[in-house]
Amino acid sequence: MKTVRSCFISCVLAILACAALSTPIHAADPLPSWNDTGPKKAIVTFVEQVTREGSPNFVPVAERIATFDNDGTLWAEQPIYFQAFFAVDRVKTLAPQHPEWKDRQPFKAVIENDKKALLASGEKGAMEIIMASHAGVTTEEFQRTVKEWLATAKHPRFNRPFTDLVYQPMLELLAYLRDNGFKTYIVSGGGVEFMRPWTEKVYGIPPEEVVGSSIKMKFEMRDGKPVLTRLPDIDFIDDGPGKPIGIQKFIGRRPIAAFGNSDGDLQMLQWTAGGEGLRFMLLVRHTDAEREWAYDRQSPIGRLDKALDEALRRGWTVVDMKKDWKKVFSFE
Amino acid sequence: MKTVRSCFISCVLAILACAALSTPIHAADPLPSWNDTGPKKAIVTFVEQVTREGSPNFVPVAERIATFDNDGTLWAEQPIYFQAFFAVDRVKTLAPQHPEWKDRQPFKAVIENDKKALLASGEKGAMEIIMASHAGVTTEEFQRTVKEWLATAKHPRFNRPFTDLVYQPMLELLAYLRDNGFKTYIVSGGGVEFMRPWTEKVYGIPPEEVVGSSIKMKFEMRDGKPVLTRLPDIDFIDDGPGKPIGIQKFIGRRPIAAFGNSDGDLQMLQWTAGGEGLRFMLLVRHTDAEREWAYDRQSPIGRLDKALDEALRRGWTVVDMKKDWKKVFSFE
Repeated sequence: MKTVRSCFISCVLAILACAALSTPIHAADPLPSWNDTGPKKAIVTFVEQVTREGSPNFVPVAERIATFDNDGTLWAEQPIYFQAFFAVDRVKTLAPQHPEWKDRQPFKAVIENDKKALLASGEKGAMEIIMASHAGVTTEEFQRTVKEWLATAKHPRFNRPFTDLVYQPMLELLAYLRDNGFKTYIVSGGGVEFMRPWTEKVYGIPPEEVVGSSIKMKFEMRDGKPVLTRLPDIDFIDDGPGKPIGIQKFIGRRPIAAFGNSDGDLQMLQWTAGGEGLRFMLLVRHTDAEREWAYDRQSPIGRLDKALDEALRRGWTVVDMKKDWKKVFSFE
Repeated sequence: MKTVRSCFISCVLAILACAALSTPIHAADPLPSWNDTGPKKAIVTFVEQVTREGSPNFVPVAERIATFDNDGTLWAEQPIYFQAFFAVDRVKTLAPQHPEWKDRQPFKAVIENDKKALLASGEKGAMEIIMASHAGVTTEEFQRTVKEWLATAKHPRFNRPFTDLVYQPMLELLAYLRDNGFKTYIVSGGGVEFMRPWTEKVYGIPPEEVVGSSIKMKFEMRDGKPVLTRLPDIDFIDDGPGKPIGIQKFIGRRPIAAFGNSDGDLQMLQWTAGGEGLRFMLLVRHTDAEREWAYDRQSPIGRLDKALDEALRRGWTVVDMKKDWKKVFSFE
């Protein structure tokens, strides 16, 4: 026979198990790497308003869509986009199978680390490098290649794996939004298949919530086995005005919150702001040359100029990395 | 002071509340509109195997992706695809704004209900009708148009809204899979924006889990308001070999189960079958002229010929609607 005491204990345990299963556990501060400055307050206020039932700004869970740029918003993008490091390394790896590259630009420049000749090859040269390093393989081979590269390649300044260069405050923000019923999508100019192999592990974002640029694919049966081959032909550029298009194509709903850092994110933020009801738009401004980099209106990578003007004019939230982030990278 | 009895009662209530919050409620039979024939048994066996922890065929929740064709698999597709009814009705609605259509094919044929002339206009004519009825508006205007049409249009044989012609057994299957941790995607040759306005209500499938054919879009600021305009230009055809491509583009994971009814689904089923581990492929065969329609190898709409041969050869599940479904439509 049970005593009142043992019954009480089982009952408390059942209630605790129930609470653990049915509600997310909230730490006292969900955003510990953010200073208590304007942006953190703006984020928390927004989330509280859209999630509080009965609030005039309440948004049902199904419509809590947040979209994040990747390069410069979730991880660093200097001195060049990390995907460009991948492309260069890949060309070097493939070079022995392509003896003709020794005398052909832009490949010659890559093999010889000739930055001047590489720059001179311009957009056409960049496209040739992208196609040589990203196409001509099956989707599964490409995923494997990306994973292998990430496991060994190091960032030149920090001498760490590239996936260490994700922003700790943004990881906390992603988790905070998801704990509050949001779906957190990546909407990036980067290649979608370059991101998918690692976004789940690094950001908690599954492949089906990654929108990005893509090349065409071909379906074929190879020795009775179906494969998708990656073709050297652009399918979709998910940048600038391509971002709202990518959002509509892949998600089919307008976000209620959007996060970016450059002019390539302007139209995504405009599209988000243009919906009805409360909206949240945020730009990460790179102001910390010591812990990360400082760049904006003049930078060839991640230029922030028109979008900054628009943010200031319309009162969007602007994060000053130096001032607003207690920590930039988790390894600090 | 609480008695043992009242403590016991609170405890049981807490546990019941906990169970209600944390686990889906299973009816005795999750598939009541399916006869106890082979297909139902095959479905249940597959789901039990991939969801039972410790089973050699266990699949983690994140990888439980199931893809469904729409026309002829989730709802009917005779005498013509329902989207074609929409296109014809839309051309008639728009005709007063286009006096030139009175003398121009294929519009003249649509306005005059001249089926012979319409057929004679061929693929080029069909494309002109699709573009006239689907492009030239913003995404939001188009969504509104689809909803308004569905609210008033009736199927000629059943004299009911088109969304009444969804298959009750497939609704149960969708719910059963979702109760078992699956994400249920539509992967259809139909227009993605024609489906999204109603799939959540009718199938429980949100817009972001609908993959389909699409036309191009343009982002622009119109009087300071951002809009996406639909352009008269094909972006992507999600049919045949386009289905595995659409799956990779939009989902980025290979399904472990796929459901179709025609040769347009063959490559989706091959792609699904080609993955490692236990897989489930199913074709719905239209064999019931009384309750629905009977058609297969010779039908211009939803032809099932090569895919049927492949299914029989490889032991995929084939549903005989007449034999295997207790009920076809919910209104029977």
